[in-house]
Amino acid sequence: MKIVLIGASGTLGQAIDAALSERHQIIRVGRQSGDLHVDITDSGSIRRLFEQVGQFDALVSAAGNLHFGALAEMSEAEYLIGLRDKLMGQVNLVLIGREFITDGGSFTLTSGILSDDPIRFGSSASMVNAAIDGFVRGAAIELPRGLRVNSVSPTVVTESMPGYAPYFRGFKPIPAAEAALGYVRSVEGAQTGQVYPMR
Amino acid sequence: MKIVLIGASGTLGQAIDAALSERHQIIRVGRQSGDLHVDITDSGSIRRLFEQVGQFDALVSAAGNLHFGALAEMSEAEYLIGLRDKLMGQVNLVLIGREFITDGGSFTLTSGILSDDPIRFGSSASMVNAAIDGFVRGAAIELPRGLRVNSVSPTVVTESMPGYAPYFRGFKPIPAAEAALGYVRSVEGAQTGQVYPMR
Ligand SMILES: NC(=O)c1ccc[n+]([C@@H]2O[C@H](COP(=O)([O-])OP(=O)(O)OC[C@H]3O[C@@H](n4cnc5c(N)ncnc54)[C@H](OP(=O)(O)O)[C@@H]3O)[C@@H](O)[C@H]2O)c1
Ligand SMILES: NC(=O)c1ccc[n+]([C@@H]2O[C@H](COP(=O)([O-])OP(=O)(O)OC[C@H]3O[C@@H](n4cnc5c(N)ncnc54)[C@H](OP(=O)(O)O)[C@@H]3O)[C@@H](O)[C@H]2O)c1
Repeated sequence: MKIVLIGASGTLGQAIDAALSERHQIIRVGRQSGDLHVDITDSGSIRRLFEQVGQFDALVSAAGNLHFGALAEMSEAEYLIGLRDKLMGQVNLVLIGREFITDGGSFTLTSGILSDDPIRFGSSASMVNAAIDGFVRGAAIELPRGLRVNSVSPTVVTESMPGYAPYFRGFKPIPAAEAALGYVRSVEGAQTGQVYPMR
Repeated sequence: MKIVLIGASGTLGQAIDAALSERHQIIRVGRQSGDLHVDITDSGSIRRLFEQVGQFDALVSAAGNLHFGALAEMSEAEYLIGLRDKLMGQVNLVLIGREFITDGGSFTLTSGILSDDPIRFGSSASMVNAAIDGFVRGAAIELPRGLRVNSVSPTVVTESMPGYAPYFRGFKPIPAAEAALGYVRSVEGAQTGQVYPMR
């Protein structure tokens, strides 16, 4: 398969790359890194990416930013960051990518554990991750041509603990290579509308 | 309790009003209807509402619009409608209302069954309803002063079936009065961060 991997240089992206590249052709995409570049917050940039890629069989996104911060210090503006970036950035990869993907192709997005298990400073992440999973369930049943869409919802990964540990006390991290299995199931399996909780 | 009810004139709102008004003072709010007016898509309008209301003990929101439509005909713009209106409108009721609510007060928002059980034309509703429930779980653990926040996630209500039946074939509707029980539990109970599925 020809697989477009958004966020290929990242902590999760590198592990997904390693898990899929043995059997598949990977187009590595990042904001500044990778074979091709995209800013997922800009739908024009997404369209230019797909025009460069041409037809492909699967898209995996392991990219998307949001605001972590104390609820007490957050107003509308801070929530809009994640809605525009991690949520609508990834949703736009589906909405625009569907014009370029082959019949039976798949989209795999990244949400995260905070949708269900909240932490301090994580109210935007809880909102955005849940929204991604909801979109996946809703969009899956309307996609034409055997197209599929799933999300992977990882817990915090071991490689990120140096920075994240203070916020994730008591969470059991998993290696990024283990989280990557969710993406492999989504891409090489046949399910749609699924959220793969990698815990 | 002094309870601010947003969407009081609506199908759900009227049933919530009936369930709570025996024991509580209800401030009925709508876009054009009610004792006071607000447009929840406008944070300035929300602030003016709370300045008129003054201190209150509970806020219940049964308002919020989003775009229903075929996935094939939807792009970013259609998703932004629901994010701005039903999602951020209700979230802003919490973010601004917290400045005016008494210690131990509660916020109760409305999401809906489509977060989990998708229908054709409902991909934005699946996204937005899930986002509301995620926000509630995330924000609850950071609210100060014993403040609480929950959501009620109703299935389709009997009173709405004249218009909604073609989209909800096979769903078992419940009377709005039954859905209203979720709001009563949220307001008069002691839980926080809960999603009450009224099915
Ligand atoms: N790490 C975890 O423990 C964990 C757990 C659960 C969920 N997640 C989620 O998984 C996603 C990736 O996390 P990560 O830790 O792997 O991130 P990361 O190491 O910071 O890598 C982010 C990757 O995304 C790319 N990127 C960033 N912003 C972009 C944009 N606007 N457009 C296109 N590409 C962009 C980066 O490209 P450049 O390097 O070129 O900028 C990089 O390749 C995030 O949404 C995160 O919330 C992470
Ligand atoms: N009905 C159902 O079966 C059902 C099931 C699950 C979830 N829900 C959700 O529950 C909510 C209410 O549904 P409903 O059927 O009761 O709606 P409805 O009968 O159409 O009533 C809507 C109410 O909200 C007010 N409103 C609308 N837009 C507003 C805005 N921008 N700012 C402030 N107030 C606004 C309206 O005021 P005015 O009349 O003055 O305009 C009215 O009081 C919706 O979010 C819906 O998705 C409904």
